[in-house]
Amino acid sequence: MTITRINLEENEIPTHWYNVVADMPNPPLPPLGPDGKPVGPEQMGVIFPDTVLEQEMSGERWIAIPEEVREAYRIWRPTPLIRAVRLEKALGTPAKIYYKYEGVSPTGSHKPNSAIPQAYLNKIAGIKRLTTETGAGQWGSSLAFAGQMFGIDVRIYMVKISYQQKPFRRSMMQTWGAEVFASPSQMTKTGRDILARDPENQGSLGIAISEAVEEAASRADTKYALGSVLNHVLLHQTVIGLEAKKQLAKVGEYPDMIFAPCGGGSNFAGIAFPFLADKAAGKQVRLVAVEPTSCPTLTRGVYAYDYGDATGFTPLMKMYTLGHDFMPPGIHAGGLRYHGDSPLVSQLFHEKLIEAVAVPQLATFEAGVAFSRAEGIIPAPESCHAVRACMDEAIRCKETGEPKTLLFNLSGHGHFDMASYDRYFAGELEDFDYPSEAVEASLAHLPKVG
Amino acid sequence: MTITRINLEENEIPTHWYNVVADMPNPPLPPLGPDGKPVGPEQMGVIFPDTVLEQEMSGERWIAIPEEVREAYRIWRPTPLIRAVRLEKALGTPAKIYYKYEGVSPTGSHKPNSAIPQAYLNKIAGIKRLTTETGAGQWGSSLAFAGQMFGIDVRIYMVKISYQQKPFRRSMMQTWGAEVFASPSQMTKTGRDILARDPENQGSLGIAISEAVEEAASRADTKYALGSVLNHVLLHQTVIGLEAKKQLAKVGEYPDMIFAPCGGGSNFAGIAFPFLADKAAGKQVRLVAVEPTSCPTLTRGVYAYDYGDATGFTPLMKMYTLGHDFMPPGIHAGGLRYHGDSPLVSQLFHEKLIEAVAVPQLATFEAGVAFSRAEGIIPAPESCHAVRACMDEAIRCKETGEPKTLLFNLSGHGHFDMASYDRYFAGELEDFDYPSEAVEASLAHLPKVG
Repeated sequence: MTITRINLEENEIPTHWYNVVADMPNPPLPPLGPDGKPVGPEQMGVIFPDTVLEQEMSGERWIAIPEEVREAYRIWRPTPLIRAVRLEKALGTPAKIYYKYEGVSPTGSHKPNSAIPQAYLNKIAGIKRLTTETGAGQWGSSLAFAGQMFGIDVRIYMVKISYQQKPFRRSMMQTWGAEVFASPSQMTKTGRDILARDPENQGSLGIAISEAVEEAASRADTKYALGSVLNHVLLHQTVIGLEAKKQLAKVGEYPDMIFAPCGGGSNFAGIAFPFLADKAAGKQVRLVAVEPTSCPTLTRGVYAYDYGDATGFTPLMKMYTLGHDFMPPGIHAGGLRYHGDSPLVSQLFHEKLIEAVAVPQLATFEAGVAFSRAEGIIPAPESCHAVRACMDEAIRCKETGEPKTLLFNLSGHGHFDMASYDRYFAGELEDFDYPSEAVEASLAHLPKVG
Repeated sequence: MTITRINLEENEIPTHWYNVVADMPNPPLPPLGPDGKPVGPEQMGVIFPDTVLEQEMSGERWIAIPEEVREAYRIWRPTPLIRAVRLEKALGTPAKIYYKYEGVSPTGSHKPNSAIPQAYLNKIAGIKRLTTETGAGQWGSSLAFAGQMFGIDVRIYMVKISYQQKPFRRSMMQTWGAEVFASPSQMTKTGRDILARDPENQGSLGIAISEAVEEAASRADTKYALGSVLNHVLLHQTVIGLEAKKQLAKVGEYPDMIFAPCGGGSNFAGIAFPFLADKAAGKQVRLVAVEPTSCPTLTRGVYAYDYGDATGFTPLMKMYTLGHDFMPPGIHAGGLRYHGDSPLVSQLFHEKLIEAVAVPQLATFEAGVAFSRAEGIIPAPESCHAVRACMDEAIRCKETGEPKTLLFNLSGHGHFDMASYDRYFAGELEDFDYPSEAVEASLAHLPKVG
């Protein structure tokens, strides 16, 4: 009997996160202030506690996972690694396909992997409240859950249009005791100013970030938490790849290629970075970030200093970007609609240690449906990007006869995304051309540095 | 470190289902036809294949799980058994609380445990198509998934009001390739007749059953599948309890009490029946079926022969019933809105081998929220019934100081039910009084037998 389901015991949850910074050929470039000078911990300290900043700035290869965090991880971790034998058969490929399934978490995605340690690190720093922003609600619900686990109050600014159109993740946040406000709100100066000018404003992630940061900066008991992009978030997500590596080793396997969706970068980093360490040690493994063709940051963007948010509130980060005021087309993989990319992922891509590929929307849903029909689990639209790229490689293997071992991150289930599948079946979804004019216009506004 | 998460390897998935009939003090009473005579396999054979009927009628204690079914179970089984240490702490109880978590399946509930073998048993009987009915869609989506796994076409009659108001499970069914029709439909004589009289008819489970059965009875390549009540469905669900028993044994535990939601009975039977065998052998274990106070079949119904559906289409079954034309109040635990109960569960209750308790709607949501805040996972409204009863017992243990070991079936996650939680938080849900007049009226229509 082929082993198709590889579990770990709870005492096999990693004891340390892997920090890729230690193995990078060049040190990461620092974030810069508006004056072009590196932003130091003092400035970051306004919105992040020391405990978080210490991880954000660390160059240590292994960072211990606090026992309280491992304890909370045990609510859903270790997650299963599954061999997609039915999909292999359906494709007629000689490739072996494995997927790491993160959809078993209480929120249905990988996001709690960082929400839990962020809540804990704030708690031990004496912080009582956290603010954050959320679009469709994956990150907001994860932080609500994590805050509840550690007794921290959480306030979430949710993009107004999602607040109105996607009430279900809002209900989840409330179930876990968080406060949720439609953004722009009356709670902050940012929100009030926008509403005074435009009472019907539907909100954006950029505005919601500004509101959450403004509130965190103005209250001593309150800090801010971010769900992707930053080094410490990527660090926390490495539990995914560390577990997957152990699980593959149990069946004597090592992947030839790894695929993950890439928006802000923590999903991809989570599964891929722990294998990058082996690559430094001479192992052959290709790491492929999969992004939407309508928001192709790595594959079509420029490598430059840019703002992390839409409004220019954050420090400047060196990253692949389509310009901070680029508004990606309305694809259903909301988690991948980000103009930039994590600085660590960007630098590794720039140094050719990782690869990237862009896939169009319809092809991702087609892959999601094929996967559901073969393997049962319905993937979230973001995860469908990894499914697509992995299936494409498996189909190539069929042509070449190569029995490659492929691994991808099935980062979340699609139970909150059935309306998107519905529209796909109704023929209402479209592929967007690469929005070259919009990107060009946006890149013209890149901040000048140095 | 307390072990909180007890996994099994995939080769520990049970090899046999447990058939409680073998250990019942008295043989189960047969279903009767309109003439008051037992219904034989010939009549049942119109809508069920021999392979299914063989299990339905079997008195064997152990029935082998076909290798192809275990293979498909491995998509999500074994499911975790989790010690609710955070909930214990929040309640301050000396009781140990364990829950079996069935929400990790592709459909998010325990229903595929029977959908998978039913699809397989039909396949080996040469059946190409299955029909079924579904209300909110838990069973329909599970049969769609199972049909896809075994290459069987599935047609689902979905109660029209749910079809319109709850599109997400409909989308799931379509993702797995099933046809879904709003019932009453134009596909059957039953549907056409109803629509001719009442074009605005919103449908009911009774009508949907009639449509599915009518189609199955009229086509040689098509059979019917049911998601609860019948013996073979309860049999299939025993994988839950069999796994839980192994998992508890790994940590040297045995439950004093077991709780599960009880609508048609397969959820409860699934976790409880395997322990009933030990009870016959002298073990002390209390098995508690938890039902809604607004539809209290076991706790307030009568033990009599009645129809399984609302319209009197099915054979008569001896069961606890509130009368087949009793329409339960609109509680949000749709899976528990059934006028009757499985004949096996009913007989065991009648013979005092199992217990039952009824809980009101608001108390179940209160328990669901408390559980979510302690343990992370948000339970489906049906599962909240078991959470409530188990919490009540844990609170009693606090008063008496008894360190009981409690086990409950967390049969599904609430990711499709957040609208119900939303209404709970908005104060829009109510408790329904026991509808004594409606039940009395309905019981006046019980069929006369013998």
